[in-house]
Amino acid sequence: MNVEAILRTKGGNVFTIRPEHSVAEMATLVSNKRIGAVVVCDDKGRILGMVSERDIVRAIAVYGKGALEMPIRNIMTSPVVTCSPTETVKKILEVMTERRIRHLPVVEKDHLVGIVSIGDAVSHRLEERQAELDVLRDIAVARK
Amino acid sequence: MNVEAILRTKGGNVFTIRPEHSVAEMATLVSNKRIGAVVVCDDKGRILGMVSERDIVRAIAVYGKGALEMPIRNIMTSPVVTCSPTETVKKILEVMTERRIRHLPVVEKDHLVGIVSIGDAVSHRLEERQAELDVLRDIAVARK
Repeated sequence: MNVEAILRTKGGNVFTIRPEHSVAEMATLVSNKRIGAVVVCDDKGRILGMVSERDIVRAIAVYGKGALEMPIRNIMTSPVVTCSPTETVKKILEVMTERRIRHLPVVEKDHLVGIVSIGDAVSHRLEERQAELDVLRDIAVARK
Repeated sequence: MNVEAILRTKGGNVFTIRPEHSVAEMATLVSNKRIGAVVVCDDKGRILGMVSERDIVRAIAVYGKGALEMPIRNIMTSPVVTCSPTETVKKILEVMTERRIRHLPVVEKDHLVGIVSIGDAVSHRLEERQAELDVLRDIAVARK
């Protein structure tokens, strides 16, 4: 199973934000949309960085109230680790586990075509494993 | 595999906080400890609630700067869904997926003995599945 299969299920909707928006504005966006991270893009749609709930909390811990007015350019993670639609779910789970990241933007021919969370990847991987298990169990039972 | 097996690997360390501490103090705690959620306890160690990074972000979206001085009592989730050390990893993954929660405090005889994240549960479950797969694959191959 590859990343494309996840996007077929969840759709290719990605919320993006400009680097000059404030941390407070980003907090409102992620709360309203019930998402954990946003891709930061310039006005030509090029990916500049990623910001997550964790980045907001860390900024507050460091800068206090002042964090809320800071542009998200100052707190975003950059450069961004991305993946392509053809990569396997197994591979991206390894990347997310190793790098300790929860969200991976999906890029095809320089265009942002979706975003995959560790939750999406895990649920697809568990389904895939279940399917493999079922096949092998059938074989094992049939040959008893 | 059960919850106890996860705690044996990661240890039973749980960070707790009192309900009268501020959101800003909690932001500092979770940032310093690199954790995503904290259990809120009274002075007798009884569990009153849970607070996560997401709760902080939501409070900022609703209350702005004022959120940082609020006591976490006002933003915590309560009552708390918990699990016991004897529950299976499969079961708690179902609970976390259904209820859309990322952290589950582990309680034994009214005492908090650990905390399990969806990441912990998933990595154990994948290992467990791999072991099942290996056994079944051996059987299938042996019977070819």
